[in-house]
Amino acid sequence: MRPGAVVRTARGDSLLDLGDIALSVNALISDASLVRAAEMRAAGALDENLPGLVPADLAAPLTPGKILCLGYNYRGHTPDGVDPRADDPEYPDVFVKTPNTVAGPNDAVVIPAGAQDVDYEGELAVVIGARARNVAIEDAMSHVAGFTILNDVSDRAWQRRQSQWALGKCSDGFAPIGPWIVTVDEAPNPQEMLVEVVRDGRITVSQSTSTTIFSVAFVVSHISQVLTLEPGDVISTGTPQKLAHAQAAHRPLAPGDAVTVRITGLGELTTRFVAAQPESPAAESFPEGTA
Amino acid sequence: MRPGAVVRTARGDSLLDLGDIALSVNALISDASLVRAAEMRAAGALDENLPGLVPADLAAPLTPGKILCLGYNYRGHTPDGVDPRADDPEYPDVFVKTPNTVAGPNDAVVIPAGAQDVDYEGELAVVIGARARNVAIEDAMSHVAGFTILNDVSDRAWQRRQSQWALGKCSDGFAPIGPWIVTVDEAPNPQEMLVEVVRDGRITVSQSTSTTIFSVAFVVSHISQVLTLEPGDVISTGTPQKLAHAQAAHRPLAPGDAVTVRITGLGELTTRFVAAQPESPAAESFPEGTA
Repeated sequence: MRPGAVVRTARGDSLLDLGDIALSVNALISDASLVRAAEMRAAGALDENLPGLVPADLAAPLTPGKILCLGYNYRGHTPDGVDPRADDPEYPDVFVKTPNTVAGPNDAVVIPAGAQDVDYEGELAVVIGARARNVAIEDAMSHVAGFTILNDVSDRAWQRRQSQWALGKCSDGFAPIGPWIVTVDEAPNPQEMLVEVVRDGRITVSQSTSTTIFSVAFVVSHISQVLTLEPGDVISTGTPQKLAHAQAAHRPLAPGDAVTVRITGLGELTTRFVAAQPESPAAESFPEGTA
Repeated sequence: MRPGAVVRTARGDSLLDLGDIALSVNALISDASLVRAAEMRAAGALDENLPGLVPADLAAPLTPGKILCLGYNYRGHTPDGVDPRADDPEYPDVFVKTPNTVAGPNDAVVIPAGAQDVDYEGELAVVIGARARNVAIEDAMSHVAGFTILNDVSDRAWQRRQSQWALGKCSDGFAPIGPWIVTVDEAPNPQEMLVEVVRDGRITVSQSTSTTIFSVAFVVSHISQVLTLEPGDVISTGTPQKLAHAQAAHRPLAPGDAVTVRITGLGELTTRFVAAQPESPAAESFPEGTA
């Protein structure tokens, strides 16, 4: 499994195998000169018939330092469900997904044994490329390396049990991300992307990022007023509401299901859901008497 | 700055300089044989008059993989303030602090320029020592390496602005941790520790962990039903309510304040709060035209 990025080359947009350039993705995205070098090398290398990266070989495109996620960032998607007349909130609602949630575009996601109501959320994810602290909205995009897709998988039963959502959001593998990073210069305007989700062959979500309440630039600037964003951090910008027919027909994800999230210019991220394996016979623990 | 742990030696409890054993703390705590080796080496080394570790040199005792925190885990501390008659909740309320929040016992914490209502929370923090997934309550303590103190610094203004608390909990340095890790075999019963906070020379919090709703063993087991706990992860077990006089006299933390959290058997963690420095003249960003 190897991480990938889409770059412009002499032959047009190409999928660059970041594993071949012997650099961590986090190091790469934090240094624009390395990005340029990689692009140039990819352009040259492709001319020398470097094998293209096979999508089935892709790993998660980066290991985020932190994953900050927005709730209720599309107009009409409110804490009480769907209310197209709701006023815009004054501030984004921000929560965290832990590092164990990261899954690659070819990883199946395990539905935990006790999970009763697992759901998907197709989201535009922003990859930070340069440290950001107290940046102005007009400068915010210069701190963004690129975009990718994140499926904010959620266990609604856990999410509902208490005020804070961590246990509903942080099961292992609950943040499939990818399939690659599209750098800002290669990507469409992030406020003009269509976010769609396909489940069981039907489109269940279809809404433009033009209907977000808080733009990418606003969100980067806003969060940077509170904490330092580092290269490799990811901000996932929230999910649109499901379409009416999908809300009516909704059932929790089950083993065997697959969900595809596709976003204009970013490709598509398909995640298969599988059952938890029976417990391994011996859980790791300290030897008797040492703790 | 060096990380420390308290270990038993031939001369009694001693502060072990983990920096001298050429191992990362995370590697150390994940391997009981290394803990034993370190103890033995420390015992021997002390007999050879190894200089003791100076508390003023201590760094954060570990770099947590993830920091999971509990809200409202002491009886009487409820979402609406203090209500001694409130029923116990059925589940712990869990949220996340991001890696940028970690501060060592000798680090000052910056009150962000825009912060209006910064507060302290003195908490018993549990350091995971062995991977935990779906562990039973009776096995949970075998997955714990030790304990330390965490000050869950919070910006109440941000915390109140939306349903999720991330922006109120995740400013840089908002999780001072230390002063060291006390291994389970050296520590008192975690359900019989007195948690106290001293501010301006007065005790503002004084409550035993015997009044927590969810025990350490329960919390480790419970969280492990939802996600995998890894060596080096930290679970902070929530704060007691402030004493009545401290609630009446409470004012937000300001530059120049110092807060000491002390817990039976774990030592004390004093954190100084300082003003934000004026912005550095040039924020980092990509060179013009590259992003």
